[in-house]
Amino acid sequence: MAKSVRYQDCDIATMQAGTAPYGLIEKASLVIEGGQILWLGKACNLPERFHALPVTSLNGRLITPAFVDCHTHLIFGGNRALEFEMRLQGASYEEIARRGGGIISTVKATREATDEELLKSALTRLDALMDSGVSVVEVKSGYGLTIDQEIRMLRIARALEQHRPVSIVTTWLAAHAVPPEYKGREEAYIDEVVIAGLKLAHSQGLVDAVDGFCETIGFSTAQMTRIFKAAKSLGLPMKLHAEQLTDQKGAILAAEYQGLSADHLEYLDPNDVPEFAKSGSVAVLLPGAFYTLKETQLPPVKALRDNQVDMAIATDCNPGSSPLTSILTAMNMACTLFSFTPEEALTGVTRHAAKALGLSDTHGVIAVNRPANIAIWDVKHPSELSYWLGASPLHQLMSSRALT
Amino acid sequence: MAKSVRYQDCDIATMQAGTAPYGLIEKASLVIEGGQILWLGKACNLPERFHALPVTSLNGRLITPAFVDCHTHLIFGGNRALEFEMRLQGASYEEIARRGGGIISTVKATREATDEELLKSALTRLDALMDSGVSVVEVKSGYGLTIDQEIRMLRIARALEQHRPVSIVTTWLAAHAVPPEYKGREEAYIDEVVIAGLKLAHSQGLVDAVDGFCETIGFSTAQMTRIFKAAKSLGLPMKLHAEQLTDQKGAILAAEYQGLSADHLEYLDPNDVPEFAKSGSVAVLLPGAFYTLKETQLPPVKALRDNQVDMAIATDCNPGSSPLTSILTAMNMACTLFSFTPEEALTGVTRHAAKALGLSDTHGVIAVNRPANIAIWDVKHPSELSYWLGASPLHQLMSSRALT
Ligand SMILES: [Zn+2]
Ligand SMILES: [Zn+2]
Repeated sequence: MAKSVRYQDCDIATMQAGTAPYGLIEKASLVIEGGQILWLGKACNLPERFHALPVTSLNGRLITPAFVDCHTHLIFGGNRALEFEMRLQGASYEEIARRGGGIISTVKATREATDEELLKSALTRLDALMDSGVSVVEVKSGYGLTIDQEIRMLRIARALEQHRPVSIVTTWLAAHAVPPEYKGREEAYIDEVVIAGLKLAHSQGLVDAVDGFCETIGFSTAQMTRIFKAAKSLGLPMKLHAEQLTDQKGAILAAEYQGLSADHLEYLDPNDVPEFAKSGSVAVLLPGAFYTLKETQLPPVKALRDNQVDMAIATDCNPGSSPLTSILTAMNMACTLFSFTPEEALTGVTRHAAKALGLSDTHGVIAVNRPANIAIWDVKHPSELSYWLGASPLHQLMSSRALT
Repeated sequence: MAKSVRYQDCDIATMQAGTAPYGLIEKASLVIEGGQILWLGKACNLPERFHALPVTSLNGRLITPAFVDCHTHLIFGGNRALEFEMRLQGASYEEIARRGGGIISTVKATREATDEELLKSALTRLDALMDSGVSVVEVKSGYGLTIDQEIRMLRIARALEQHRPVSIVTTWLAAHAVPPEYKGREEAYIDEVVIAGLKLAHSQGLVDAVDGFCETIGFSTAQMTRIFKAAKSLGLPMKLHAEQLTDQKGAILAAEYQGLSADHLEYLDPNDVPEFAKSGSVAVLLPGAFYTLKETQLPPVKALRDNQVDMAIATDCNPGSSPLTSILTAMNMACTLFSFTPEEALTGVTRHAAKALGLSDTHGVIAVNRPANIAIWDVKHPSELSYWLGASPLHQLMSSRALT
């Protein structure tokens, strides 16, 4: 029999839908065997057969599902701190672009970085995410913008699993920007890099989903449709950076393709929400980018809530618009900036975030016969996870994924 | 001779005024002997006599002065996570007050907590602050509101020095709120608790400065004048919570009394800034409270800058309006929300924060013949300290203060 252990003196926020707030079980016990949850419930209801198991007391701590960061650009070369500084010193966007700022500066730094450098800096950020309770991280390509470089990013993303006990979910985001060498030849870029590279990367098992930056300064819905059709023909799920800066009806496009999610959504028209809701796609909100960009247009949270759209929260960790490596900070921002309740914020980084990655069967809730992906916290009530700002009260992160 | 050590392969942001940006010395060496800085400068200029010292390579890391958090309410009982949750669930202020929310709920929880409980929870927050680079923390009373309880808070604040290698600076803030037992008898509270308690606490060596909450919902300038006169007669320096919610001319009052600082200042009239500037008082800005309260009135940063007022940044760590335990997050918020440059933010938690506590001679800059209060960071450039959000890149914190 695999090694079993019983946790006691704890509360468990199971995050199971349709139960008490947070799915909270107070004075609970949890039995884990071989990385699987064997039993959970009120300690007073613990079946006789588990009474003799070795016991770990958690001294009143709280257990939640381990968190899922469902939208990151974790792998990149360099950083944009000097651009951040130039902007605050009053430099214009033109001046910053002239001095090599913007996304293309990250593309350049990423292309120039060695595999080891990309891995090392991503591991630093991954450690920070894990310290905030995260055990599943979605990682997008999108700073390579050539077939080889985009594939390299996803290969390094996958390699993170060899260094930390986390699960990595990869997303093909060659449609992040048009690289300088394709300037004015967007359609050729889509054919020759985005779609051709997707097919190659997919054949190598490197792609879990396909994404794009649907914006006036990115790709149009017509262009995204071409890319989504290619994804569909490969049987890959889709998601989309939609309505971050303007209303392009990207969320509607993602819904049409039964996308896993539409992400950002500040400029989503509330009137489009009922249509979006029908798809079952998750609305992934990214308060770190809203905050960093000093955006004032709020996503239509009330309309999303009223239409029972599942809302997730993620860090959007990236060097330009969200240099954020704590999902707890994203939760606080969701409450403070987007008027989420703490329960919505916690649901947004667990059950709904797992759904946004197609992992509803294994992640995001604590339930019997599921892998024991759990976080143990030095807090008394789940609302504290959204309330405190700055340090992580994480006591222990437990992942069912052993190092490969 | 005391033990000497030489650091090399580092950059040093000395934060000395009137030098290069950040007082930056690249490719530097630093010689420390017995907790004092003996030499610093370009490595190539290292005097012969230090060449034989034991060497620690910092692999290109950055050294800054250890940070000074010059405005906190670190010691309190309980927390206000459930109030945070109630508010986000749509409860009105009346309902929250009826269910025991607001500052008085923290007074109640603080009075009910044992010394050990207050110490333990403060140490958790102190550890978080230290992890963000802080080695000097100002701690205010203000949740006891009786002589005994206010003195107890400051005694526990001082006791923190026995548990961590930090310096604690104490502030008498009995004029934080009027406790229920003095409702409608504010003047009596000022005489019988604020001033009488101040004299007693001062006689016990527990008070480094005197503060008050000058607001329509706090104390008037006339009331604060009475308290400041008592402080002055004891030879104690003053500071003031001023212009956080309304313009009460509190900053002008603090300036009249040559206060160390005026704090918050969102509603400070830019026209009052030249008058304030003459006093040499520091303007302490608290972006964590601005953010948490969803304030929209910005402090007059441009006027403060134009009038050469020294601006500091602090966490305002407190359970109601700023449950923030990372001064790095406060720096990011100062940049993102208040348009500070990263250099202003770093100056605000070093040189200017030290000035706000009357510690300019010993803290806040790296210079020869000063105590070696330094922080060593895993970043390449000082702007990164304001840029990243969520995790601390602290490599090592060095305090000249041994445990007592
Ligand atoms: Zn993104
Ligand atoms: Zn305060």
